[in-house]
Order: sequence, then C-alpha cells, then structure tokens
Amino acid sequence: MANITVLGAGSWGTALGMVLAHNNHDCLLWSHREKQTEEILKDHTNKQYLPDTKLPENLRATSDLKVAIDHASTIVIAVPTKAIREVCQDFVKLMNDKKLFIHVSKGIEPDSLKRISEMIAEEIPASLVEGIVVLSGPSHAEEVVLQHPTTITVASDNMVAAEKVQDLFMNNYFRVYTNDDVIGVEIGAALKNVIALAAGIVDGLGYGDNAKAALITRGLAEISRLGISLGAKPYTFSGLTGMGDLIATCTSVHSRNWRAGNLLGKGASLEEVLEEVGMIVEGVRTTKAAHQLAVKQEVDMPITAALHSVLFENVHPKEAVDSLMHRTKKNELEDYKTF
Amino acid sequence: MANITVLGAGSWGTALGMVLAHNNHDCLLWSHREKQTEEILKDHTNKQYLPDTKLPENLRATSDLKVAIDHASTIVIAVPTKAIREVCQDFVKLMNDKKLFIHVSKGIEPDSLKRISEMIAEEIPASLVEGIVVLSGPSHAEEVVLQHPTTITVASDNMVAAEKVQDLFMNNYFRVYTNDDVIGVEIGAALKNVIALAAGIVDGLGYGDNAKAALITRGLAEISRLGISLGAKPYTFSGLTGMGDLIATCTSVHSRNWRAGNLLGKGASLEEVLEEVGMIVEGVRTTKAAHQLAVKQEVDMPITAALHSVLFENVHPKEAVDSLMHRTKKNELEDYKTF
Repeated sequence: MANITVLGAGSWGTALGMVLAHNNHDCLLWSHREKQTEEILKDHTNKQYLPDTKLPENLRATSDLKVAIDHASTIVIAVPTKAIREVCQDFVKLMNDKKLFIHVSKGIEPDSLKRISEMIAEEIPASLVEGIVVLSGPSHAEEVVLQHPTTITVASDNMVAAEKVQDLFMNNYFRVYTNDDVIGVEIGAALKNVIALAAGIVDGLGYGDNAKAALITRGLAEISRLGISLGAKPYTFSGLTGMGDLIATCTSVHSRNWRAGNLLGKGASLEEVLEEVGMIVEGVRTTKAAHQLAVKQEVDMPITAALHSVLFENVHPKEAVDSLMHRTKKNELEDYKTF
Repeated sequence: MANITVLGAGSWGTALGMVLAHNNHDCLLWSHREKQTEEILKDHTNKQYLPDTKLPENLRATSDLKVAIDHASTIVIAVPTKAIREVCQDFVKLMNDKKLFIHVSKGIEPDSLKRISEMIAEEIPASLVEGIVVLSGPSHAEEVVLQHPTTITVASDNMVAAEKVQDLFMNNYFRVYTNDDVIGVEIGAALKNVIALAAGIVDGLGYGDNAKAALITRGLAEISRLGISLGAKPYTFSGLTGMGDLIATCTSVHSRNWRAGNLLGKGASLEEVLEEVGMIVEGVRTTKAAHQLAVKQEVDMPITAALHSVLFENVHPKEAVDSLMHRTKKNELEDYKTF
C-alpha cells in the first residue's frame, strides 16, 4: 500500500484514482474546484465527468495543493496538456523532496514542440525528480471504471521507475506493460487524437468503414514516420500505445476527439464543436503542433496537413478528405519505404 | 474497355462486377444457380446478397461456365475458399488459351496449408496462366456498391499483371494500389477473419472497446509473426491488407466473421451461429488452418490458439478470453522482438 496523489479530477484522473483505490493504495485526488472536491468527499461521485459512476469511499479529494503534494511521494499528473507547465510551476514551490512523477496527458506543446515529459523535466529541477513515467494505451475512462479489461503501457528512461508504476496499477482488469521508448509512446499518444479528429470527419461525411479503415492505416504510417524521425522505435507504433490506442480512439463513441471530428464532418464550425463537446479536445491543439513538427522534421504527414487546413485554414472537410483520397501514389509500399 | 468474367455472384463478386461495369468493361457474372442468374438479368438485383442494391444494366450474368470462360481473357475468382479447387477443376477443362486470374477469396486450406494463389497454381497448368493476382483490402461490399471511398491492394509476383488489374478496377471511389508481396497480402487477408471472430467474442462478452483494441493490436502482431515466418514482408502488415483490413473487419457490423464471434460471445453454439449468419463464415475454417500453420512454423499465436479451443475444443469463450488477458508477459516489446 502506497500514498499516491492524482492531480486533476477529470474523467481519466478520476478513473485512475479508482484503480489505485481499488488496489488499496491511499489515493488523494486534487481538483482546483472546491465544489468538485466536496462532491467527491460527500457524495462519492464526479457527475460532470463520470455521470453514472459511484466512487470508492477510500478515494479522497482535496483542493489544497500543499496537502496534495505532501500526501505522497508518487504524483500522477492528469491535467490537460495546456495546463501542464502552470500546474508544475505551482506545486514545485511546495516541494522539498524527490518524487516519482507519472503523467497521463496526451499532446505536444505548440511552438516549443515539446513532449509532455520534456515540459515536466523543464519545470521541475532534476534534484526533485525520482523519475518521470508516461502511462498510456487504449483506455476509455468510462470502461475502466466499469472494470472492463484494459491494457496499458508505462514508459520511462528509468525502468526501475516504470516497474514501480506497473506494480502500483496492475490488477486483474488493468494490465500494465513496461516499455523504454518514451518518445514513441508520447508521440503515439499525442498524434492519435489528430487521426481521431480526421476519422470523425470521415464518419461525419458518411464515407463509411472502408474509408475510415484506410485513413486509420495511413494515419499510423504518418505517426510512425514522425516518431521515427524523432528517435522513437518503429515497433512501439505497432503496440498498445500506437495501433491499439489509435483503434480505440478512432472507433469508439467514447472519444471526444472522434466526436468533435464527427460534428465537423456534419458541417459544424470549430467554435460550435468545442462548445458542444464541452471538455478539452486535445486533438485541435495537437494538430497545430504536429503540423509544425512535420515541417521541422521534413516528414510527409498528409492527413495532419489536411486536418490543419480544415481547422485553421477554412478548407471544407469534404474537400480536404477528397483530396486525400485522390493522391496519386500507386504502389502501396511507397508509404512505408521511408521507415 | 475489356471483357471480364467474375466467377461467383456472392456479395463481393457482385460488388466487384458493379465496379467493373461502372468502368465500362463488358463484365459477365457467373453463378451456378440459374434462378440467381435470371434475377440479375431480368430484375437487375441480387437480393440474397445485396438486398437494397440496383445492379447496372450492363452487368450481365450466366450460369453456363463455358460461356463465362469464353467471354473473357481476364477471370475474377470470387468463390469461397472451400470451392476454389472444384471451380478451377471445372473451368480448366473448358480453357484453350492463357488467361489472367484475379482472386478475391480469403482463407487457407486446412491440412495442405496452401494459400489461395498456391491452390490456383496447382489446379491450372502454367501454360494457361498469364498471371495470378490477389485483390484484397478494407472493403465491405455493402459500401462499395454505394460508391463510398474504398482503397484496395492488388498483389502479384507478376507486376505487369498487377498493374493491368489496377487499371481495370481503378476509379474515383475505388482506389487500387499495387504490391509485390503475395504471401503477406494473402496471409493478412485470411488471418484477419480469425481475429475478427475473436473480436466479435470480446464484444459479445461485453468487454468493451479497450479490450477489443488490445486484442486487435496483439492479433496483428501474431498475424505478422506467422506471415514473416512464411516469407512475407513486415510492412505489408502495417498496410491496407494487414492493419487496414483488420480494423475494417473487426469494427464493422458488416463483417460476417465479427457477427459470428459476437453470437458465440453471447452464448450461442457454433452450429446455431452458422445457421444464423447464413453465409459462409471463412474465419471458422481458417482458424483450423492457421492453428495448424502456427504449429508447423513454430510461431506463437495465442489468440488463434484460444479461438481454436473455443471452436473445436469446447472451451467456454469467457474462459478463453480471460486466460488471454492474464498472460504473464510484462514488457510490451517482448511480443515484437521476434520480428
């Protein structure tokens, strides 16, 4: 039994807190919203994010960041990519000993083009870091809280830290695998949301499962090309955090990014979509960063470029998807030869 | 404009005939059932296989195999795997010049463990073969007849033949890519039906999208291991006929194999399932062949083995899936290191 703090009480932070509480760890959820904290403490619910879920009574909550940080030497960072630096800057002032950090966010920072673990390493002095571990994989929070079988990867440059995290989370419905390819896992996690938005558009346009399967396949090819150019291992993209997470995100109604794309494909504007979905749609910001990264790395990413043109250059979704379909490539392996 | 014959008027043969007719080829569908031939000729429908589809008037039909064979120097073989040898034996007697053969079937022959192109090459003397081309990819017939965007691979040892087939089928909604990896394309096409059955079981058991995404991911890993052991190129499995077709088959209600698995997962017996689905479920027979092939090639195929135990050894689906989930592997890349 360990003390663990989860920073961020959205659907994924809460679901992971439930897994840890189920494993008999003393888990504290931190939310900056006091009303949410109260609801978790008194009613054992978090209705905004997990409407039908009863939280275990041993999952506690606080809105006091000092209390949250002092509670544990293992910290799970479960806030949107946009908030990572600010949250780190806030809690690092309160720290006085080394901690193990686990992040579960999915994105790349626009302009700086940093991955999440790079942002964390920049914000927290190395003297206060026992290890940084990324936890990712095909895992809709809505299914984890129902204890449906889920497989997850934890990756770190520090395999001792990764194995420690594996032991904290592992149980009979939550299967955790280790991996040492942090770049591959983080790039796969971030970029799958871009392809999920595109897959949602294809569905919103009514183009069917044949077209979507082709899009997901070519999507993984371009994610792999980008990741490998950055130093990732090719086979990571064939694994749970690459192909697995891409499938889960592109083919499930649980995915916010797919839902956002679906609304775009049906003709809604980006503003309408973001209002309708309500929660953060990581893929929108990631598309901007991924497009910048593709240009910088000189990697061909036609789907990302097409989505960028829809989100930020006023190209109509149908026009963007049709031009993707009609690319002139004739030999299938041309796409893969650059691996 | 070319003369082309399609042998077999199931949903896929008919849909491909429609694509060829749409491309202004003189396409003749052969069915051994005279009633079906009459329906195609008179009503321009094929209600048993494509209930809501109006066939183009220039798509003709015959039940006379001699007429069908004499019509064209390009023959599309679109019969179930089980019927391939018998159909070849029937028409080879009627042939007197070389023809180009395209097959679109998905399976492996139990016991002999031959791929479809190997069976065709055994049944037709080389002197009568201009080329053998396999056509495969993520393509539900139901969507092709609606002219939804579809991408397809044609593979052959003879690239001149593959490019000829590409030109026959290619149009603005049916995009055809060439590939020279016949083994990879045929193994991917056959084995995806095994994984689709397993995915259907996972869905039938109510295990959710997280579990299914993991199963599909590990499914592609074992298909790749088997294919590579037989001489296929690794990247074929990341392409349309590997990952693409696997996604289309495992996540669509159009898939007969998925539907069969789904019924098994819900508790039906194999006999009840085959009766309910009505059409050939290729995955059942392929599971037997794939399991034999895995043993012969000494390749670890845990999903295929688990499905084999359900179909042929009376193991309960839940027990088989649960034991798959609880395998003790702890490092994700262990699965891929054998590539």
